[in-house]
Amino acid sequence: MDSRPIGLFDSGLGGLTVLRALLERLPNESYIYLGDTARTPYGSKGVGTVQAYSRQCARFLTNQDVKLLVVACNTASAVALDLLLAECACPVIGTIDPAVEAALRGDAVSKVGVIGTSSTIASGVYQRALERADSALQVFAKACPLFVPLVEEGILTGRVVDQVLDLYLQDLAQHGIERLILGCTHYPVLVPALSDYFDGLVEIVSCADEIARVVERELQSLGAAERSVGAVRYFVTDEVSRFNKLAGLYLKDSNVNALALEELLNP
Amino acid sequence: MDSRPIGLFDSGLGGLTVLRALLERLPNESYIYLGDTARTPYGSKGVGTVQAYSRQCARFLTNQDVKLLVVACNTASAVALDLLLAECACPVIGTIDPAVEAALRGDAVSKVGVIGTSSTIASGVYQRALERADSALQVFAKACPLFVPLVEEGILTGRVVDQVLDLYLQDLAQHGIERLILGCTHYPVLVPALSDYFDGLVEIVSCADEIARVVERELQSLGAAERSVGAVRYFVTDEVSRFNKLAGLYLKDSNVNALALEELLNP
Repeated sequence: MDSRPIGLFDSGLGGLTVLRALLERLPNESYIYLGDTARTPYGSKGVGTVQAYSRQCARFLTNQDVKLLVVACNTASAVALDLLLAECACPVIGTIDPAVEAALRGDAVSKVGVIGTSSTIASGVYQRALERADSALQVFAKACPLFVPLVEEGILTGRVVDQVLDLYLQDLAQHGIERLILGCTHYPVLVPALSDYFDGLVEIVSCADEIARVVERELQSLGAAERSVGAVRYFVTDEVSRFNKLAGLYLKDSNVNALALEELLNP
Repeated sequence: MDSRPIGLFDSGLGGLTVLRALLERLPNESYIYLGDTARTPYGSKGVGTVQAYSRQCARFLTNQDVKLLVVACNTASAVALDLLLAECACPVIGTIDPAVEAALRGDAVSKVGVIGTSSTIASGVYQRALERADSALQVFAKACPLFVPLVEEGILTGRVVDQVLDLYLQDLAQHGIERLILGCTHYPVLVPALSDYFDGLVEIVSCADEIARVVERELQSLGAAERSVGAVRYFVTDEVSRFNKLAGLYLKDSNVNALALEELLNP
Protein backbone atom coordinates (compact mmCIF):
# COMPACT_ATOMS: atom_id res chain seq x y z
CA MET A 1 0.00 0.00 0.00
CA ASP A 2 1.25 3.42 -0.94
CA SER A 3 -1.09 6.34 -0.45
CA ARG A 4 1.00 8.82 -2.48
CA PRO A 5 -0.69 10.17 -5.61
CA ILE A 6 -0.11 9.28 -9.24
CA GLY A 7 1.06 12.30 -11.24
CA LEU A 8 0.17 12.97 -14.85
CA PHE A 9 0.78 15.86 -17.21
CA ASP A 10 -0.23 17.04 -20.65
CA SER A 11 0.13 20.23 -22.67
CA GLY A 12 -3.50 21.00 -21.90
CA LEU A 13 -6.76 19.11 -21.81
CA GLY A 14 -5.91 16.01 -23.85
CA GLY A 15 -4.42 14.07 -20.97
CA LEU A 16 -7.81 14.12 -19.27
CA THR A 17 -8.76 11.20 -21.55
CA VAL A 18 -5.99 9.25 -19.78
CA LEU A 19 -7.10 10.47 -16.35
CA ARG A 20 -10.61 9.32 -17.12
CA ALA A 21 -9.40 5.80 -17.97
CA LEU A 22 -7.30 5.75 -14.79
CA LEU A 23 -10.25 6.88 -12.65
CA GLU A 24 -12.36 4.08 -14.12
CA ARG A 25 -9.80 1.33 -13.60
CA LEU A 26 -8.15 2.59 -10.39
CA PRO A 27 -10.79 4.67 -8.59
CA ASN A 28 -9.12 4.31 -5.20
CA GLU A 29 -5.91 6.03 -6.20
CA SER A 30 -5.24 9.73 -5.76
CA TYR A 31 -4.11 11.80 -8.75
CA ILE A 32 -2.43 15.10 -9.52
CA TYR A 33 -3.15 16.34 -13.05
CA LEU A 34 -1.02 19.12 -14.52
CA GLY A 35 -2.15 20.84 -17.73
CA ASP A 36 0.45 23.23 -19.17
CA THR A 37 -2.29 25.37 -20.69
CA ALA A 38 -0.21 28.57 -20.76
CA ARG A 39 2.16 27.00 -23.31
CA THR A 40 -0.18 24.65 -25.16
CA PRO A 41 0.07 23.19 -27.77
CA TYR A 42 3.28 21.14 -27.64
CA GLY A 43 2.71 19.32 -30.93
CA SER A 44 3.88 22.06 -33.27
CA LYS A 45 6.88 23.10 -31.18
CA GLY A 46 10.51 22.08 -31.38
CA VAL A 47 12.10 19.09 -29.65
CA GLY A 48 14.23 21.19 -27.32
CA THR A 49 11.27 23.32 -26.26
CA VAL A 50 9.05 20.31 -25.52
CA GLN A 51 11.87 18.64 -23.61
CA ALA A 52 12.35 21.73 -21.45
CA TYR A 53 8.60 22.02 -20.75
CA SER A 54 8.31 18.28 -20.02
CA ARG A 55 11.19 18.42 -17.58
CA GLN A 56 9.55 21.33 -15.74
CA CYS A 57 6.20 19.51 -15.56
CA ALA A 58 7.85 16.31 -14.33
CA ARG A 59 9.87 18.20 -11.74
CA PHE A 60 6.76 19.86 -10.34
CA LEU A 61 5.00 16.50 -10.02
CA THR A 62 7.96 14.65 -8.51
CA ASN A 63 8.31 17.51 -6.01
CA GLN A 64 4.72 16.66 -5.02
CA ASP A 65 6.05 13.20 -4.14
CA VAL A 66 4.08 11.22 -6.71
CA LYS A 67 4.65 7.47 -6.63
CA LEU A 68 4.39 7.12 -10.41
CA LEU A 69 4.47 9.57 -13.31
CA VAL A 70 2.29 9.25 -16.42
CA VAL A 71 3.35 11.35 -19.40
CA ALA A 72 -0.21 11.78 -20.68
CA CYS A 73 0.91 13.59 -23.84
CA ASN A 74 2.10 11.82 -26.96
CA THR A 75 4.34 14.68 -28.08
CA ALA A 76 6.13 14.76 -24.72
CA SER A 77 6.34 10.95 -24.73
CA ALA A 78 7.75 10.98 -28.26
CA VAL A 79 10.55 13.46 -27.61
CA ALA A 80 11.16 13.51 -23.84
CA LEU A 81 10.36 10.08 -22.35
CA ASP A 82 13.98 8.82 -22.32
CA LEU A 83 15.09 12.01 -20.63
CA LEU A 84 12.36 11.73 -17.96
CA LEU A 85 13.11 8.02 -17.38
CA ALA A 86 16.74 8.95 -16.74
CA GLU A 87 15.93 11.87 -14.43
CA CYS A 88 12.95 10.75 -12.34
CA ALA A 89 13.34 8.52 -9.31
CA CYS A 90 9.80 7.13 -9.65
CA PRO A 91 8.50 4.88 -12.48
CA VAL A 92 7.55 6.84 -15.62
CA ILE A 93 4.95 5.60 -18.12
CA GLY A 94 4.50 7.19 -21.53
CA THR A 95 1.85 6.80 -24.18
CA ILE A 96 3.75 5.16 -27.05
CA ASP A 97 4.39 1.60 -25.83
CA PRO A 98 0.87 1.17 -24.39
CA ALA A 99 -0.68 2.39 -27.66
CA VAL A 100 1.48 0.02 -29.71
CA GLU A 101 0.65 -2.86 -27.35
CA ALA A 102 -3.07 -2.12 -27.70
CA ALA A 103 -2.79 -1.86 -31.49
CA LEU A 104 -1.23 -5.31 -31.86
CA ARG A 105 -3.61 -7.14 -29.54
CA GLY A 106 -6.36 -9.39 -30.95
CA ASP A 107 -6.66 -10.50 -34.57
CA ALA A 108 -3.54 -10.12 -36.67
CA VAL A 109 -3.53 -7.12 -38.98
CA SER A 110 -1.22 -6.13 -41.82
CA LYS A 111 -1.91 -2.40 -42.22
CA VAL A 112 -1.95 0.03 -39.32
CA GLY A 113 -2.39 3.78 -39.42
CA VAL A 114 -1.10 6.19 -36.81
CA ILE A 115 -2.09 9.83 -36.47
CA GLY A 116 -0.66 12.47 -34.16
CA THR A 117 0.78 15.96 -33.92
CA SER A 118 3.49 17.15 -36.31
CA SER A 119 6.19 16.59 -33.68
CA THR A 120 5.02 13.10 -32.73
CA ILE A 121 4.83 11.89 -36.32
CA ALA A 122 8.10 13.60 -37.28
CA SER A 123 9.85 11.89 -34.36
CA GLY A 124 9.10 8.49 -35.96
CA VAL A 125 8.71 6.80 -32.55
CA TYR A 126 5.42 5.11 -33.43
CA GLN A 127 6.67 3.93 -36.80
CA ARG A 128 9.82 2.43 -35.21
CA ALA A 129 7.98 0.81 -32.30
CA LEU A 130 5.41 -0.81 -34.60
CA GLU A 131 8.03 -2.10 -37.03
CA ARG A 132 10.10 -3.44 -34.12
CA ALA A 133 7.06 -5.32 -32.80
CA ASP A 134 6.11 -6.76 -36.20
CA SER A 135 8.47 -6.26 -39.11
CA ALA A 136 5.86 -7.44 -41.64
CA LEU A 137 3.44 -4.69 -40.60
CA GLN A 138 2.75 -1.87 -43.05
CA VAL A 139 2.60 1.41 -41.12
CA PHE A 140 1.01 4.58 -42.50
CA ALA A 141 1.66 7.67 -40.39
CA LYS A 142 0.01 11.06 -40.80
CA ALA A 143 0.38 14.32 -38.89
CA CYS A 144 -2.99 15.99 -38.24
CA PRO A 145 -2.07 19.41 -36.78
CA LEU A 146 -5.59 20.87 -36.94
CA PHE A 147 -7.13 18.15 -34.75
CA VAL A 148 -5.89 19.65 -31.46
CA PRO A 149 -7.25 23.15 -32.21
CA LEU A 150 -10.59 21.59 -33.19
CA VAL A 151 -10.77 19.64 -29.95
CA GLU A 152 -9.59 22.58 -27.84
CA GLU A 153 -12.38 24.65 -29.44
CA GLY A 154 -14.93 21.90 -28.75
CA ILE A 155 -15.69 21.48 -32.48
CA LEU A 156 -16.23 17.73 -32.70
CA THR A 157 -18.80 17.27 -35.47
CA GLY A 158 -20.09 19.14 -38.51
CA ARG A 159 -18.84 20.18 -41.91
CA VAL A 160 -15.55 21.69 -40.71
CA VAL A 161 -14.66 18.43 -38.98
CA ASP A 162 -15.69 16.40 -42.06
CA GLN A 163 -13.40 18.46 -44.30
CA VAL A 164 -10.46 18.35 -41.87
CA LEU A 165 -10.82 14.57 -41.52
CA ASP A 166 -10.85 14.22 -45.29
CA LEU A 167 -7.78 16.44 -45.65
CA TYR A 168 -5.72 14.24 -43.35
CA LEU A 169 -7.22 10.75 -43.61
CA GLN A 170 -7.88 10.29 -47.30
CA ASP A 171 -4.47 8.62 -47.82
CA LEU A 172 -4.91 6.27 -44.87
CA ALA A 173 -8.37 5.28 -46.13
CA GLN A 174 -7.00 4.62 -49.62
CA HIS A 175 -4.23 2.43 -48.19
CA GLY A 176 -6.93 0.29 -46.57
CA ILE A 177 -5.69 0.47 -42.97
CA GLU A 178 -7.38 -1.98 -40.60
CA ARG A 179 -6.50 -0.28 -37.32
CA LEU A 180 -5.85 3.36 -36.47
CA ILE A 181 -3.76 4.42 -33.48
CA LEU A 182 -4.77 7.74 -31.94
CA GLY A 183 -1.27 9.03 -31.27
CA CYS A 184 -2.48 12.09 -29.36
CA THR A 185 -4.44 12.15 -26.12
CA HIS A 186 -6.73 14.85 -27.53
CA TYR A 187 -8.10 12.59 -30.23
CA PRO A 188 -10.39 10.18 -28.31
CA VAL A 189 -13.13 12.83 -28.23
CA LEU A 190 -13.09 12.70 -32.05
CA VAL A 191 -13.82 8.93 -32.12
CA PRO A 192 -17.46 9.28 -33.25
CA ALA A 193 -16.41 11.44 -36.21
CA LEU A 194 -13.47 9.14 -37.00
CA SER A 195 -15.68 6.04 -36.90
CA ASP A 196 -18.12 7.67 -39.28
CA TYR A 197 -15.33 8.71 -41.61
CA PHE A 198 -14.11 5.11 -41.96
CA ASP A 199 -17.71 3.76 -42.08
CA GLY A 200 -16.97 1.76 -38.93
CA LEU A 201 -14.53 -0.44 -40.89
CA VAL A 202 -11.36 0.65 -39.09
CA GLU A 203 -10.71 -0.35 -35.49
CA ILE A 204 -9.71 2.73 -33.49
CA VAL A 205 -7.10 2.30 -30.77
CA SER A 206 -6.53 4.82 -27.99
CA CYS A 207 -3.69 4.56 -25.49
CA ALA A 208 -5.85 5.64 -22.54
CA ASP A 209 -7.27 2.27 -21.43
CA GLU A 210 -3.97 0.54 -22.05
CA ILE A 211 -2.08 3.10 -19.96
CA ALA A 212 -4.50 2.46 -17.10
CA ARG A 213 -3.79 -1.27 -17.47
CA VAL A 214 -0.02 -0.70 -17.48
CA VAL A 215 -0.25 1.55 -14.42
CA GLU A 216 -2.31 -1.10 -12.59
CA ARG A 217 0.27 -3.78 -13.42
CA GLU A 218 3.16 -1.55 -12.35
CA LEU A 219 1.54 -0.67 -9.01
CA GLN A 220 0.78 -4.34 -8.34
CA SER A 221 4.35 -5.36 -9.07
CA LEU A 222 5.59 -2.65 -6.71
CA GLY A 223 2.99 -3.52 -4.04
CA ALA A 224 2.05 0.16 -4.25
CA ALA A 225 -1.67 0.04 -5.04
CA GLU A 226 -3.92 2.12 -2.78
CA ARG A 227 -7.34 1.06 -1.50
CA SER A 228 -8.66 4.25 0.06
CA VAL A 229 -11.06 6.66 -1.60
CA GLY A 230 -9.03 8.61 -4.11
CA ALA A 231 -8.96 12.33 -4.81
CA VAL A 232 -7.90 14.37 -7.82
CA ARG A 233 -6.07 17.68 -7.71
CA TYR A 234 -5.69 19.77 -10.86
CA PHE A 235 -3.06 22.38 -11.66
CA VAL A 236 -2.92 24.52 -14.80
CA THR A 237 -0.45 27.17 -15.94
CA ASP A 238 -3.04 29.39 -17.70
CA GLU A 239 -6.33 30.69 -16.27
CA VAL A 240 -8.34 28.09 -14.41
CA SER A 241 -11.87 29.03 -15.55
CA ARG A 242 -11.67 27.79 -19.12
CA PHE A 243 -9.94 24.59 -18.01
CA ASN A 244 -12.56 23.90 -15.35
CA LYS A 245 -15.37 24.29 -17.85
CA LEU A 246 -13.85 22.11 -20.56
CA ALA A 247 -12.47 19.56 -18.09
CA GLY A 248 -16.02 19.08 -16.87
CA LEU A 249 -17.04 18.04 -20.37
CA TYR A 250 -14.13 15.59 -20.69
CA LEU A 251 -14.67 13.97 -17.33
CA LYS A 252 -18.44 14.36 -17.06
CA ASP A 253 -17.73 15.99 -13.73
CA SER A 254 -18.80 19.58 -13.14
CA ASN A 255 -16.77 19.94 -9.95
CA VAL A 256 -13.32 20.42 -11.43
CA ASN A 257 -11.53 23.18 -9.53
CA ALA A 258 -8.03 23.62 -10.85
CA LEU A 259 -5.38 25.65 -9.09
CA ALA A 260 -3.25 28.18 -10.98
CA LEU A 261 0.39 27.16 -11.12
CA GLU A 262 2.55 30.15 -11.95
CA GLU A 263 5.83 28.76 -10.67
CA LEU A 264 6.22 26.60 -13.79
CA LEU A 265 6.43 29.75 -15.91
CA ASN A 266 9.22 31.11 -13.73
CA PRO A 267 11.45 28.07 -13.35
CA MET B 1 18.13 61.15 -36.92
CA ASP B 2 18.12 58.17 -34.58
CA SER B 3 19.82 54.99 -35.78
CA ARG B 4 18.40 52.79 -33.03
CA PRO B 5 16.10 49.99 -34.23
CA ILE B 6 12.33 49.74 -34.08
CA GLY B 7 11.23 46.73 -31.99
CA LEU B 8 8.16 44.64 -32.70
CA PHE B 9 6.79 41.46 -31.21
CA ASP B 10 4.05 38.95 -31.85
CA SER B 11 3.09 35.54 -30.46
CA GLY B 12 4.56 33.97 -33.60
CA LEU B 13 4.51 34.67 -37.31
CA GLY B 14 1.51 36.99 -37.62
CA GLY B 15 3.42 40.16 -36.79
CA LEU B 16 5.49 39.63 -39.92
CA THR B 17 2.58 41.15 -41.88
CA VAL B 18 3.24 44.34 -39.90
CA LEU B 19 7.00 44.08 -40.42
CA ARG B 20 6.41 43.75 -44.14
CA ALA B 21 4.36 46.94 -44.23
CA LEU B 22 7.03 48.74 -42.20
CA LEU B 23 9.80 47.54 -44.52
CA GLU B 24 7.83 48.86 -47.49
CA ARG B 25 7.12 52.27 -46.01
CA LEU B 26 10.29 52.75 -43.97
CA PRO B 27 13.01 50.70 -45.69
CA ASN B 28 15.84 52.71 -44.15
CA GLU B 29 14.99 51.86 -40.57
CA SER B 30 16.47 48.91 -38.65
CA TYR B 31 14.14 46.43 -36.97
CA ILE B 32 14.20 43.76 -34.28
CA TYR B 33 11.38 41.24 -34.63
CA LEU B 34 10.58 38.93 -31.72
CA GLY B 35 8.25 35.96 -32.27
CA ASP B 36 7.28 34.18 -29.05
CA THR B 37 6.90 30.90 -30.94
CA ALA B 38 7.53 28.69 -27.91
CA ARG B 39 4.33 29.95 -26.28
CA THR B 40 2.18 30.69 -29.33
CA PRO B 41 -0.77 31.15 -29.66
CA TYR B 42 -1.72 34.02 -27.33
CA GLY B 43 -5.30 34.33 -28.57
CA SER B 44 -6.81 31.47 -26.60
CA LYS B 45 -4.95 32.21 -23.38
CA GLY B 46 -5.96 34.17 -20.31
CA VAL B 47 -5.48 37.90 -19.80
CA GLY B 48 -2.94 37.50 -17.00
CA THR B 49 -0.89 35.05 -19.04
CA VAL B 50 -0.81 37.27 -22.14
CA GLN B 51 0.08 40.30 -20.00
CA ALA B 52 3.00 38.43 -18.45
CA TYR B 53 4.27 37.26 -21.84
CA SER B 54 3.84 40.71 -23.39
CA ARG B 55 5.76 42.33 -20.56
CA GLN B 56 8.65 39.88 -21.07
CA CYS B 57 8.72 40.50 -24.82
CA ALA B 58 8.65 44.26 -24.34
CA ARG B 59 11.38 44.11 -21.74
CA PHE B 60 13.65 42.12 -24.06
CA LEU B 61 13.15 44.67 -26.83
CA THR B 62 13.58 47.76 -24.65
CA ASN B 63 16.77 46.17 -23.30
CA GLN B 64 17.94 46.13 -26.93
CA ASP B 65 17.51 49.92 -26.83
CA VAL B 66 14.73 50.19 -29.42
CA LYS B 67 13.55 53.73 -30.16
CA LEU B 68 9.93 52.67 -30.62
CA LEU B 69 7.98 49.52 -29.78
CA VAL B 70 5.25 48.07 -32.02
CA VAL B 71 2.96 45.53 -30.39
CA ALA B 72 2.38 43.61 -33.63
CA CYS B 73 -0.16 41.27 -32.03
CA ASN B 74 -3.82 42.16 -31.59
CA THR B 75 -4.29 39.94 -28.56
CA ALA B 76 -1.36 41.57 -26.76
CA SER B 77 -2.59 45.01 -27.87
CA ALA B 78 -6.09 44.22 -26.62
CA VAL B 79 -5.11 43.12 -23.12
CA ALA B 80 -1.64 44.53 -22.43
CA LEU B 81 -1.19 47.83 -24.31
CA ASP B 82 -2.07 50.09 -21.35
CA LEU B 83 0.36 48.20 -19.18
CA LEU B 84 3.16 48.49 -21.76
CA LEU B 85 2.44 52.20 -22.30
CA ALA B 86 2.84 52.73 -18.56
CA GLU B 87 6.02 50.69 -18.25
CA CYS B 88 8.04 51.48 -21.39
CA ALA B 89 10.14 54.61 -21.70
CA CYS B 90 9.90 54.62 -25.53
CA PRO B 91 6.72 55.24 -27.58
CA VAL B 92 4.50 52.13 -27.88
CA ILE B 93 2.14 51.56 -30.80
CA GLY B 94 -0.50 48.85 -30.77
CA THR B 95 -2.75 47.47 -33.47
CA ILE B 96 -6.21 48.56 -32.33
CA ASP B 97 -6.27 52.32 -32.92
CA PRO B 98 -4.56 52.09 -36.34
CA ALA B 99 -7.03 49.42 -37.45
CA VAL B 100 -9.99 51.50 -36.28
CA GLU B 101 -8.58 54.59 -37.99
CA ALA B 102 -8.17 52.66 -41.25
CA ALA B 103 -11.67 51.22 -40.98
CA LEU B 104 -13.30 54.65 -40.69
CA ARG B 105 -11.38 56.30 -43.52
CA GLY B 106 -13.01 56.95 -46.90
CA ASP B 107 -16.71 56.60 -47.65
CA ALA B 108 -19.00 56.55 -44.63
CA VAL B 109 -20.23 53.10 -43.65
CA SER B 110 -22.91 51.99 -41.21
CA LYS B 111 -22.04 48.33 -40.60
CA VAL B 112 -18.55 47.16 -39.73
CA GLY B 113 -17.44 43.63 -38.87
CA VAL B 114 -14.40 42.78 -36.77
CA ILE B 115 -12.80 39.37 -36.46
CA GLY B 116 -10.01 38.27 -34.14
CA THR B 117 -8.89 35.70 -31.61
CA SER B 118 -11.13 34.69 -28.72
CA SER B 119 -9.22 36.92 -26.30
CA THR B 120 -9.25 39.97 -28.58
CA ILE B 121 -12.99 39.76 -29.26
CA ALA B 122 -13.80 38.94 -25.62
CA SER B 123 -11.85 42.01 -24.48
CA GLY B 124 -14.30 44.25 -26.38
CA VAL B 125 -11.57 46.78 -27.26
CA TYR B 126 -12.45 46.95 -30.94
CA GLN B 127 -16.16 47.22 -30.25
CA ARG B 128 -15.59 50.08 -27.75
CA ALA B 129 -13.08 51.93 -29.95
CA LEU B 130 -15.39 51.80 -32.99
CA GLU B 131 -18.44 52.92 -31.03
CA ARG B 132 -16.43 55.73 -29.45
CA ALA B 133 -15.33 56.90 -32.90
CA ASP B 134 -18.83 56.74 -34.39
CA SER B 135 -21.73 56.04 -32.07
CA ALA B 136 -24.11 55.42 -35.01
CA LEU B 137 -21.96 52.59 -36.32
CA GLN B 138 -23.29 49.03 -36.07
CA VAL B 139 -20.45 46.74 -35.05
CA PHE B 140 -20.53 42.96 -35.48
CA ALA B 141 -17.68 41.14 -33.77
CA LYS B 142 -16.80 37.48 -34.15
CA ALA B 143 -14.01 35.36 -32.66
CA CYS B 144 -12.43 33.03 -35.24
CA PRO B 145 -10.14 30.79 -33.17
CA LEU B 146 -9.35 28.34 -35.97
CA PHE B 147 -7.91 31.00 -38.30
CA VAL B 148 -4.53 31.19 -36.55
CA PRO B 149 -3.95 27.40 -36.63
CA LEU B 150 -4.91 27.40 -40.33
CA VAL B 151 -2.44 30.18 -41.09
CA GLU B 152 0.31 28.66 -38.93
CA GLU B 153 -0.16 25.40 -40.89
CA GLY B 154 -0.05 27.28 -44.20
CA ILE B 155 -3.57 26.14 -45.14
CA LEU B 156 -4.88 29.22 -46.94
CA THR B 157 -7.27 27.87 -49.58
CA GLY B 158 -9.38 24.79 -50.21
CA ARG B 159 -12.42 23.10 -48.76
CA VAL B 160 -11.27 23.22 -45.14
CA VAL B 161 -10.78 26.98 -45.38
CA ASP B 162 -14.15 27.38 -47.10
CA GLN B 163 -15.95 25.53 -44.30
CA VAL B 164 -14.10 27.36 -41.52
CA LEU B 165 -14.89 30.72 -43.14
CA ASP B 166 -18.54 29.74 -43.39
CA LEU B 167 -18.60 28.62 -39.75
CA TYR B 168 -17.41 32.00 -38.52
CA LEU B 169 -18.52 34.53 -41.13
CA GLN B 170 -22.07 33.47 -41.98
CA ASP B 171 -23.53 35.85 -39.37
CA LEU B 172 -21.43 38.81 -40.53
CA ALA B 173 -22.46 38.17 -44.15
CA GLN B 174 -26.12 38.01 -43.15
CA HIS B 175 -25.83 41.29 -41.26
CA GLY B 176 -24.59 42.91 -44.49
CA ILE B 177 -21.33 44.36 -43.19
CA GLU B 178 -19.62 46.80 -45.55
CA ARG B 179 -16.13 46.66 -44.06
CA LEU B 180 -14.30 43.93 -42.19
CA ILE B 181 -11.45 44.66 -39.80
CA LEU B 182 -8.83 41.92 -39.59
CA GLY B 183 -8.28 42.11 -35.84
CA CYS B 184 -5.38 39.67 -35.88
CA THR B 185 -2.03 40.11 -37.61
CA HIS B 186 -2.20 36.52 -38.89
CA TYR B 187 -5.25 37.17 -41.02
CA PRO B 188 -3.88 39.25 -43.94
CA VAL B 189 -2.61 36.06 -45.62
CA LEU B 190 -6.25 34.90 -45.69
CA VAL B 191 -7.39 37.98 -47.66
CA PRO B 192 -7.85 36.14 -51.01
CA ALA B 193 -10.10 33.55 -49.34
CA LEU B 194 -11.96 36.25 -47.38
CA SER B 195 -12.54 38.34 -50.51
CA ASP B 196 -13.93 35.31 -52.32
CA TYR B 197 -16.19 34.48 -49.38
CA PHE B 198 -17.79 37.93 -49.49
CA ASP B 199 -17.81 37.95 -53.32
CA GLY B 200 -15.60 41.05 -53.25
CA LEU B 201 -18.47 43.08 -51.73
CA VAL B 202 -16.85 43.73 -48.36
CA GLU B 203 -13.86 46.01 -48.00
CA ILE B 204 -11.17 44.29 -45.96
CA VAL B 205 -9.10 46.41 -43.58
CA SER B 206 -5.79 45.32 -42.12
CA CYS B 207 -3.91 47.28 -39.48
CA ALA B 208 -0.51 46.64 -41.08
CA ASP B 209 -0.31 49.55 -43.52
CA GLU B 210 -1.89 51.92 -41.03
CA ILE B 211 0.61 50.95 -38.33
CA ALA B 212 3.44 51.74 -40.75
CA ARG B 213 1.82 55.14 -41.38
CA VAL B 214 1.46 55.81 -37.62
CA VAL B 215 5.08 54.79 -37.00
CA GLU B 216 6.26 57.12 -39.78
CA ARG B 217 4.27 60.01 -38.29
CA GLU B 218 5.59 59.31 -34.79
CA LEU B 219 9.22 59.16 -35.94
CA GLN B 220 8.80 62.39 -37.88
CA SER B 221 7.31 64.18 -34.91
CA LEU B 222 10.19 62.94 -32.74
CA GLY B 223 12.77 63.80 -35.40
CA ALA B 224 13.87 60.19 -35.04
CA ALA B 225 13.63 58.87 -38.59
CA GLU B 226 16.71 57.09 -39.95
CA ARG B 227 18.06 57.40 -43.48
CA SER B 228 20.71 54.69 -43.59
CA VAL B 229 20.22 51.23 -45.07
CA GLY B 230 18.18 49.30 -42.55
CA ALA B 231 18.69 45.78 -41.23
CA VAL B 232 16.34 43.28 -39.61
CA ARG B 233 17.22 40.94 -36.78
CA TYR B 234 14.84 38.15 -35.78
CA PHE B 235 14.56 36.37 -32.44
CA VAL B 236 12.25 33.46 -31.66
CA THR B 237 11.68 31.50 -28.47
CA ASP B 238 11.08 28.11 -30.19
CA GLU B 239 13.29 26.42 -32.81
CA VAL B 240 14.49 28.75 -35.52
CA SER B 241 14.21 26.42 -38.55
CA ARG B 242 10.42 26.36 -38.86
CA PHE B 243 10.23 30.12 -38.32
CA ASN B 244 12.90 30.83 -40.95
CA LYS B 245 11.05 28.74 -43.51
CA LEU B 246 7.60 30.23 -42.90
CA ALA B 247 8.95 33.77 -42.41
CA GLY B 248 10.43 33.50 -45.89
CA LEU B 249 6.95 32.91 -47.28
CA TYR B 250 5.48 35.89 -45.39
CA LEU B 251 8.21 38.29 -46.37
CA LYS B 252 9.11 36.85 -49.77
CA ASP B 253 12.67 36.76 -48.45
CA SER B 254 14.50 33.45 -48.21
CA ASN B 255 17.32 34.86 -46.11
CA VAL B 256 15.60 35.01 -42.75
CA ASN B 257 18.00 33.74 -40.07
CA ALA B 258 16.41 34.02 -36.67
CA LEU B 259 18.32 33.62 -33.42
CA ALA B 260 17.03 31.41 -30.63
CA LEU B 261 16.06 33.40 -27.56
CA GLU B 262 15.91 31.13 -24.54
CA GLU B 263 16.22 33.83 -21.88
CA LEU B 264 12.59 34.80 -22.34
CA LEU B 265 11.52 31.36 -21.12
CA ASN B 266 13.62 31.77 -17.97
CA PRO B 267 12.73 35.31 -16.95
